[in-house]
Amino acid sequence: MKKIILTGDRPSGKLHLGHYGGSLKNRVLLQESHKQYIMIADIQALTDNFDNPEKVTSNVLEVMADYLSVGIDPNISTIFIQSQIPELAELTIYYMNLVTLGRLQRNPTVKAEIQQKGYNDSLPIGFLCYPISQAADITAFNADLVPAGEDQLPMIEQTNEIVRKFNGTYSSNCLKEVEPLISNVRRLIGIDGKAKASKSLNNTIFLSDEASEIKRKVFMMYTDPNHLKISDPGKVEGNVVFEYLNAFHENKEEINELKAHYQRGGLGDTTIKSILNDSLQSMLEPIRDKRLSLKKGELLEILYNGTRAAREVVKEKIEEVRDVIGIKY
Amino acid sequence: MKKIILTGDRPSGKLHLGHYGGSLKNRVLLQESHKQYIMIADIQALTDNFDNPEKVTSNVLEVMADYLSVGIDPNISTIFIQSQIPELAELTIYYMNLVTLGRLQRNPTVKAEIQQKGYNDSLPIGFLCYPISQAADITAFNADLVPAGEDQLPMIEQTNEIVRKFNGTYSSNCLKEVEPLISNVRRLIGIDGKAKASKSLNNTIFLSDEASEIKRKVFMMYTDPNHLKISDPGKVEGNVVFEYLNAFHENKEEINELKAHYQRGGLGDTTIKSILNDSLQSMLEPIRDKRLSLKKGELLEILYNGTRAAREVVKEKIEEVRDVIGIKY
Repeated sequence: MKKIILTGDRPSGKLHLGHYGGSLKNRVLLQESHKQYIMIADIQALTDNFDNPEKVTSNVLEVMADYLSVGIDPNISTIFIQSQIPELAELTIYYMNLVTLGRLQRNPTVKAEIQQKGYNDSLPIGFLCYPISQAADITAFNADLVPAGEDQLPMIEQTNEIVRKFNGTYSSNCLKEVEPLISNVRRLIGIDGKAKASKSLNNTIFLSDEASEIKRKVFMMYTDPNHLKISDPGKVEGNVVFEYLNAFHENKEEINELKAHYQRGGLGDTTIKSILNDSLQSMLEPIRDKRLSLKKGELLEILYNGTRAAREVVKEKIEEVRDVIGIKY
Repeated sequence: MKKIILTGDRPSGKLHLGHYGGSLKNRVLLQESHKQYIMIADIQALTDNFDNPEKVTSNVLEVMADYLSVGIDPNISTIFIQSQIPELAELTIYYMNLVTLGRLQRNPTVKAEIQQKGYNDSLPIGFLCYPISQAADITAFNADLVPAGEDQLPMIEQTNEIVRKFNGTYSSNCLKEVEPLISNVRRLIGIDGKAKASKSLNNTIFLSDEASEIKRKVFMMYTDPNHLKISDPGKVEGNVVFEYLNAFHENKEEINELKAHYQRGGLGDTTIKSILNDSLQSMLEPIRDKRLSLKKGELLEILYNGTRAAREVVKEKIEEVRDVIGIKY
């Protein structure tokens, strides 16, 4: 039997090259060999956007369009939307009895996010609890694998703790532990050289960007501030152009030659940016074309069908869970 | 239009005289003049009984039988079970975004309960969040009134805070503020003289107790430890027999005469216990008889029908809530 993967995205913006290199390409590769569920996590996105729900709701179909345009096949992968499966909320409520406040407060991923968002005294309990909601999502589909970066491993651990606590408390094998599918792709840095490409930092190239916009962003990329004249030797570490070439340029030999040339001097930023631009344009053009061909009705239909199929799976699980707890009258 | 009441009980045991005097009698009085929803709160009961779910699930039909035997009419009042309306879980998840951790920790009712249960470092997040789940229950039915003791007023305040935050955040009038219906009935003390009659303290008289069991409990009631000889003057304050006579004996004039006699001396404990026993027996006999006449199938049918009707109301509300947040695709 195929192994089950649960993955997905918070729909708080269109997807960008960071998503493409880090996870979307992998989903396309994995979808034949695995049973893959892809969740558009609108409920999770609301935990830190509850006061601006439109940011979430307006991006649901954008994310769906991104999925299809990169080659995720809805006939093989099941794409669904979290909010339309209320059984996931029910499961979350059951799991909340199994997790202590202290445990949630010690979760390193959430701790870092709380600090980053500056919540302090105004921490919404829904945000603190989102790892429990994730555990509900993962276990509801009997997922074997969840693609995760190193920084998300505490979330997987939290899920498996809930699995063990649940199975132990109710003397069952109802829930399955999950393993991380760790990506060896480096996190894509922003075009400004900042550690992370993210929509909120406005330093990303979106999959849906127009050709001219891609070019504009490539040509404003941070390179080596000390590489003033073409003849100067330049640094490739932390140089966004080389980072992006590493991530997306097909010809690895050419990259190595370019790096060596840049390091010894004589290779200008304009030249390497042109090469990267060509590379990204030819990679993104078919994706953008596919995106433009998608109709709203089609996207909605895929969302409905995927969600209906996913909900059936979750309903079966919630019946098992209720049975094991004894909630049946 | 009739005002809407939401009320109910955690099904963690059969109901007893404390419930009867404090709330059940009132429900019978209010059910014609109000639209009354009565919730068997199994999900809420699981927040502090998750590791012993049978304590909850095995008492659901017992509580239903108690309701019917005291005269709650399922043709007028809607009796339902919380766990079979998963939309209440969904609503709870939405509200969790609107409440901070700090606010929950300051809730005086929950604070006292946490201390009483000795949770310390092992506080389940589900328990801390149960006031949010209550807010979901109350608002889902557009309740105008919730019967409450003084100690539960912080729960009502928590609900109304969520109502205001929700309506403000989403610029709507979707949710309705609720008012407490404060009972002026004094909390019934335990037969051992302890402050509260409760199943966990094993100091209560259940509505379903046999006649002999009622008598046994009445005759072991705490009276005045200094009232050694019948001729001694006795105290009526803190004297369980007089507390119960106050609560359940119909003839108030007789109570006053008994009190005066007891205080001046010459009235024995056996006499007042006999009077109380007669009074309780004649009050509880028809309740017990009604209870014995109820069949399991009948109880289940009432539970199903009530829950189906209640769920329709909640579904309408959740549609409104989703609409207002914008979760519709």
